[in-house]
Amino acid sequence: MTDVLLRGGRPWGRDAPADILVRDGRIAPAGPAPGAQVIDLAGQIVLPGLVEAHCHLDKTLYGGPWTPHSADDTLGGRIGNDLARRAELGVPSVERIGTLLRRMISCGTTHVRTHTDIDPEVGLRGVAAVREAASGLPVDVTQVAFPQHGLLTNPGTAELLEEALKDGVEAVGGLDPAGIDRDPVRHLDLIFALAERYGAHLDIHLHDGGSLGAWELELITERTQVLGLRGRVTVSHAYALGQIDDAHAGRLTQGFAEAGVAVATAAVYSFPIPPVKRLRAAGVTVACGHDGIRDLWGPYGGGDMLERAMHLAYRSTFRRDEDIELALEAATYGGARALGLRDYGLEPGDRADLTAVPASAPAEAVVVHPARTLVMKDGVVLHN
Amino acid sequence: MTDVLLRGGRPWGRDAPADILVRDGRIAPAGPAPGAQVIDLAGQIVLPGLVEAHCHLDKTLYGGPWTPHSADDTLGGRIGNDLARRAELGVPSVERIGTLLRRMISCGTTHVRTHTDIDPEVGLRGVAAVREAASGLPVDVTQVAFPQHGLLTNPGTAELLEEALKDGVEAVGGLDPAGIDRDPVRHLDLIFALAERYGAHLDIHLHDGGSLGAWELELITERTQVLGLRGRVTVSHAYALGQIDDAHAGRLTQGFAEAGVAVATAAVYSFPIPPVKRLRAAGVTVACGHDGIRDLWGPYGGGDMLERAMHLAYRSTFRRDEDIELALEAATYGGARALGLRDYGLEPGDRADLTAVPASAPAEAVVVHPARTLVMKDGVVLHN
Repeated sequence: MTDVLLRGGRPWGRDAPADILVRDGRIAPAGPAPGAQVIDLAGQIVLPGLVEAHCHLDKTLYGGPWTPHSADDTLGGRIGNDLARRAELGVPSVERIGTLLRRMISCGTTHVRTHTDIDPEVGLRGVAAVREAASGLPVDVTQVAFPQHGLLTNPGTAELLEEALKDGVEAVGGLDPAGIDRDPVRHLDLIFALAERYGAHLDIHLHDGGSLGAWELELITERTQVLGLRGRVTVSHAYALGQIDDAHAGRLTQGFAEAGVAVATAAVYSFPIPPVKRLRAAGVTVACGHDGIRDLWGPYGGGDMLERAMHLAYRSTFRRDEDIELALEAATYGGARALGLRDYGLEPGDRADLTAVPASAPAEAVVVHPARTLVMKDGVVLHN
Repeated sequence: MTDVLLRGGRPWGRDAPADILVRDGRIAPAGPAPGAQVIDLAGQIVLPGLVEAHCHLDKTLYGGPWTPHSADDTLGGRIGNDLARRAELGVPSVERIGTLLRRMISCGTTHVRTHTDIDPEVGLRGVAAVREAASGLPVDVTQVAFPQHGLLTNPGTAELLEEALKDGVEAVGGLDPAGIDRDPVRHLDLIFALAERYGAHLDIHLHDGGSLGAWELELITERTQVLGLRGRVTVSHAYALGQIDDAHAGRLTQGFAEAGVAVATAAVYSFPIPPVKRLRAAGVTVACGHDGIRDLWGPYGGGDMLERAMHLAYRSTFRRDEDIELALEAATYGGARALGLRDYGLEPGDRADLTAVPASAPAEAVVVHPARTLVMKDGVVLHN
């Protein structure tokens, strides 16, 4: 493998350009590199590979013809529509998933966590489809075994989640343990037990709002703390954090920091978003993702994590550069921490998962999100 | 002027392709057109020119170097920062305004309403700068004489607004008559009187929320009704409409419909947005714009009205095609009605202000907002 010298880029947009030597798939200490392929970045910003921390690859219709949304405006309507139409539309589709992954890669995404539907009807077909689509592509995809259509309320699902974990799926999911699954304690006990038994991560969808959602956040924090699962538990969406009063949000945030619970947000539609700045100030990991991209749940999403970081920054009413950078942090290092990635970053020894973007400051990269001029995965130049 | 035949486009994305003959700057009835320039649109969607109904051209830093936002998080901070830094940054800048207008034009925008700051310090320099920048460009720009830094609270401003109207500025603005200017009745009486005296339009910024903003909406509706200004009054932002209870919003909506008050929204940040679907169902005109684009008030905004319509649809949680089309309606016909444009549309006799976009449905044009493949102003092909 030929060495690659990325010349004159600005890591994370710092003022001083710094060369990055890539050797054997990793960032090497600076030093002589005769014969290296030289790529001149001419002051462009170099970022570690973007991390898509919350999406639903298995559901996507990306790359296919425009498919008008056909559900009514209720959550129940969307669930029913999903069940009714996914077979007709060929979901999950290895081809569509592959098309979306290639789009993500072209935008500099090097790591993806995707929530894959598991239920008695679809079984583990989604897991297999995602694996097949990702196989051979220069992107690391990990899956969450996701009970989209209920866990306790959908007999047979718990067994399938366990089967997925036995089969090597990296994380187990949950879904509104109170609002949808109707028995939060049993729901959480079940998935936490699975996570413990299989050494898996946990990533729980929590749309439940207000005091109900806040109470469920306490249940999640308690279990994470007691079971010592620091760094392995993520709450996705967590709308409640953006709805409760300031003091209450402060207590929950403190609990997350102490227990090591991360928050993943997609800043979708007009739903409340967690207070990113407060969470980061308390040391809580914040990750970012798209949620669904062009699927039966909604027609939006383009697959570019810099654009998604813009949505997060915008919805957070971040105007100053240092605030907007918090969204970029969520789309990079924050996602990496939530996913438990090793050797992620811009330092010698880190895997050479990198992207470059023509912008003067990280905040500009987010706001303008220009096309990536370089994407590198494990030291291999994918495009430049 | 050579005739132009737009062949095989789909007006507003209707199923059947229809040729559009352009003659002397207008859409002509179908008929023979020997010697016409033929542009093959091959099934692409043809839209009337996009209408940017609410922006602040005079403030923009667009096209210049990235300028980190430097105000604190308060409205007062942003106002103070604006006053302190605009001179240093060369605002208003004919060059920057021109660059932004050219970007808008390339995205198919043919009509712009811009709120131009007027105060004793800047005087009418903003008005002159916008006129100079727009002069000779293929876009219709109308201005709102805007008391950004207070009206009653900023002595001399009222006289300057009147001077602007005498000088031909098309509309007079207002700004939070209660929350900022502290005397809503006198504020509104003053600007309504100016609008009446000079035959001008009115476009009032209303960020005031909840019951205060709702009450101001009543004051505006009453004055519009009594003075018979139907079709000449727009409320911009109108956050309150998205905050009050359903019954109250219903009464205000009914009042708007009866009095002929329009609503312009930019769907900015996480601020509440007016209920677009309800307003349209009641027959109220809804227009759409960017608000500020890369200025001292915030670093966001790209100038593409299809992208902005996406933000409006997304923040409105519109998923179905017919709902997403409401956002496109706001960015076209709705804006045209709010601005009082004549001969706007896709019918014979309308001015040939047109754009084309490669999409299968209007909703896809909004969600994906691909680059425009044709922009035409008054029958002149600007790019294709």
